[in-house]
Amino acid sequence: MNGAESLVHSLLKSGVTTCFSNPGTSEMHFVAALDRVPGMHCVLGLFEGVVTGAADGYARMAGKPAATLLHCGPGLANGLANLHNARRAATPIVNIVGDQATYHRPLDSPLTADTEGFARGVSGWVRTSMHAHSVGADAAAAVQASMTAPGQVATLILPSDASWDEGGIVAEALPRLTTPSVSPNQIDEAADALRRGGAGIVLLLGGIALHEEGLELAHRIQAATGCRVVAQGSNARMARGHGRLAIERVPYVVDQAVKAMAGTQHLILAGSRKPVTFFAYPNKPQTSIPDDAQIHVLARPEQDIVEALHRLVEALHCPKVAAPNNGFRPEIGRGALTPEAVAATVGALMPDNAVIADESVSFGRGFFANTKAGPHHDWLNVTGGAIGGGMPMATGAALGAPGRRVINLQADGSAMYTMQALWTQAREKLDITTVLLSNRKYQILLGELANVGANPGRTALDMMDIGNPDIQWPNLANSLGVEAARTDTAEGFADLLAHSLKRSGPFLIELLI
Amino acid sequence: MNGAESLVHSLLKSGVTTCFSNPGTSEMHFVAALDRVPGMHCVLGLFEGVVTGAADGYARMAGKPAATLLHCGPGLANGLANLHNARRAATPIVNIVGDQATYHRPLDSPLTADTEGFARGVSGWVRTSMHAHSVGADAAAAVQASMTAPGQVATLILPSDASWDEGGIVAEALPRLTTPSVSPNQIDEAADALRRGGAGIVLLLGGIALHEEGLELAHRIQAATGCRVVAQGSNARMARGHGRLAIERVPYVVDQAVKAMAGTQHLILAGSRKPVTFFAYPNKPQTSIPDDAQIHVLARPEQDIVEALHRLVEALHCPKVAAPNNGFRPEIGRGALTPEAVAATVGALMPDNAVIADESVSFGRGFFANTKAGPHHDWLNVTGGAIGGGMPMATGAALGAPGRRVINLQADGSAMYTMQALWTQAREKLDITTVLLSNRKYQILLGELANVGANPGRTALDMMDIGNPDIQWPNLANSLGVEAARTDTAEGFADLLAHSLKRSGPFLIELLI
Repeated sequence: MNGAESLVHSLLKSGVTTCFSNPGTSEMHFVAALDRVPGMHCVLGLFEGVVTGAADGYARMAGKPAATLLHCGPGLANGLANLHNARRAATPIVNIVGDQATYHRPLDSPLTADTEGFARGVSGWVRTSMHAHSVGADAAAAVQASMTAPGQVATLILPSDASWDEGGIVAEALPRLTTPSVSPNQIDEAADALRRGGAGIVLLLGGIALHEEGLELAHRIQAATGCRVVAQGSNARMARGHGRLAIERVPYVVDQAVKAMAGTQHLILAGSRKPVTFFAYPNKPQTSIPDDAQIHVLARPEQDIVEALHRLVEALHCPKVAAPNNGFRPEIGRGALTPEAVAATVGALMPDNAVIADESVSFGRGFFANTKAGPHHDWLNVTGGAIGGGMPMATGAALGAPGRRVINLQADGSAMYTMQALWTQAREKLDITTVLLSNRKYQILLGELANVGANPGRTALDMMDIGNPDIQWPNLANSLGVEAARTDTAEGFADLLAHSLKRSGPFLIELLI
Repeated sequence: MNGAESLVHSLLKSGVTTCFSNPGTSEMHFVAALDRVPGMHCVLGLFEGVVTGAADGYARMAGKPAATLLHCGPGLANGLANLHNARRAATPIVNIVGDQATYHRPLDSPLTADTEGFARGVSGWVRTSMHAHSVGADAAAAVQASMTAPGQVATLILPSDASWDEGGIVAEALPRLTTPSVSPNQIDEAADALRRGGAGIVLLLGGIALHEEGLELAHRIQAATGCRVVAQGSNARMARGHGRLAIERVPYVVDQAVKAMAGTQHLILAGSRKPVTFFAYPNKPQTSIPDDAQIHVLARPEQDIVEALHRLVEALHCPKVAAPNNGFRPEIGRGALTPEAVAATVGALMPDNAVIADESVSFGRGFFANTKAGPHHDWLNVTGGAIGGGMPMATGAALGAPGRRVINLQADGSAMYTMQALWTQAREKLDITTVLLSNRKYQILLGELANVGANPGRTALDMMDIGNPDIQWPNLANSLGVEAARTDTAEGFADLLAHSLKRSGPFLIELLI
């Protein structure tokens, strides 16, 4: 057995059954091994940013890592932006990066690059497997590392001779490392703060605190103490919909964030970090939290957050409570494609157990409120601010959550970074509805220009204008194998959205907003 | 004057007049400064790989660097693959990477990344400008560094407060550093080898030895000594066409390369490096040069190569010779779209002073022979093996060589990495004909599978198949504002190529090969 075969076997033993791939020469033995080792679902992406973003979306839904297969340093480099997003989401991913043979690397052939150097900035674990006999064990270690709480990117670099040499050894799965419990002090401190009662006490949730169980516990704490419960600004996955605690996120726009968090006296972090603004702006605060607020760490992201919430519920003697009532579902929007009309239509029509992949950026900030009373769904944000995460994430989420419809709320400017994802959606016949919010501008930058105090003239405005020429999204989607249509009315949107939800496979709706 | 304004002024003083841009929040003051400082041509790309690849193509033709404007670590990361290609081409590029404010970086907001770390693998020079008053001087140093022979990537990281703070100082251009001459020993050793005479003596040209003057000198040496003159496998820019010395490149395919270089007794490096294979393969050599060949370094890439060739001509008393006769131009191809027919048609119809941006990969290896007797033109290769270089390089070359038609010989698989370049071509109304070689496969990998001794089965073949679904290139180009057509005959290709050359602006021809 060669190293490549031992790698595929070992990944499967460790539970990795999906591999998002954009292979090159150095991965040919891995690819050939796939023929001989059944059980690995290989999904081709035509650009590495699709591959890594899809691995992020997959793991968020499947709760276990996918592998990626990337080609040398530059292939990894093309996937770094979405690995940055995955790092911020604490998503488990196992990158397999094929590279020059160990004995060829010193010759510095043209494609040779600092692959380890590129990997370090996004990976919690990096290793180069130097021999065929170590590849299997290294793969098992990579999977274990990726699953270490709260989850991280593990990158295994595979020189081609380690892949093709005989002597590969299949490794059994390594045990999952225990997630450390929080200390009694952390519980006591948070409980003391919460006993003060009232909305000045804010419980800020992140990570798996935003899954169903965490939200139920937070709801009990809120009901018992009157505290506020808030989510971080961007989150890997959040359980939402009817009967689930509907909580707001810390807003992106700094002035709104400061307003939203005003009055916070005690901030209790449950798998979250103290909010900081995305960027610094002249004469604006760097955090939305008042300076005199006290910070209490109930659970760090790498600690057992849900267990900590259980213990907090016990310490506070919070009774069980009825599921929250989030009110009525909105009705579909009418007339012009205002943010409110689009949001209401999504809220009105989304099917049970949808997965929302949200890269709606400037236009989509109202989507959240309009979907809280919809059916159960999960909401995925692009977490690291590296744009181009949405379409790949939607692609991976569909594969990680079979049978569930994915709705990708997608800004046009961001979509242009990784629209090759549409081709993979068509190839894999994935049930994804892309709602393409086409304003033909980098709208967010117009806001940011104002925030930094810059007054744009013609040249500056040209750099925000992606409407010259207008991108014809239905044509573009069709060219990549995805059916598509365009509308400029809320009624048209409702019709197209309903149509897309009834059919199988991907569909793109361009909204001229 | 703020730091951003001093930056734009200083770049202009140093001769940088084109900036390929994909800006974000941290670059808003730079963008605003463009309004107040006339003279910088800003070209928007919708993905950073387009931006960096265009900067590469621009500098190869303009002979001076363009700036890029990129957004934080992930924005730089998206541009790394084409910066890797630029590094291998020794192209001068000045990256401006806007980043978190100095005082905001410690807060580790979501988009914060190891920007310097990402930059190092591709840059010969990296600096973070920490104060508004140092930005201008740092910009001048970056331009100087980029132009240091043979040329390199210089990356200036610009925290947003260094951009917006007052106190910017405009810096004058720094003198270009002298390119070191080669030692007399280097000339003597090369001359001694060449005096042996015959085709076992190989003069291997790289870098600017492949521009017009270097080729003339090499021709005189060849005529006087009977040596062979060969070019490196991939080259930044090569002068070609009627009356210019037509030389072959070292082939990519290892067996062909070994055959081509068999019989080499003395290898004289003129701005080149000893050829090594792109990858190692089991039981195949790592270099095409016989083991017993002697290597002589006439000029290292960073030395004055053309002066060295002049001194070598003198040492050998090479007489002036008539321009070489490269034979007759081919006639346009007929019938099926064979490699020969396509190559002949390009050779027959290419206009005077065309620029060929070549990312034709597997199909295009016959293009070279069929164009040697065409009119004068420059040939640009993707130099680092990072695919997705062709369309961006064509885009930048058109801006760096105004008035000259660019013909982009482009494989379909590679095109999918950076096809956003078509939008920039449309926006800037660039005279680019893209010849899209559509085989709907990663054809090169099928060859590589055989080279590494792997026998592909169905799963492996799926990973080479980009034809499910077929990408509709004319639709795709139209959707990005570029007119396009498709053909499956040589006659159809000749008609479309002739049509595209008569009109202005970009045009894409899909060849179903």
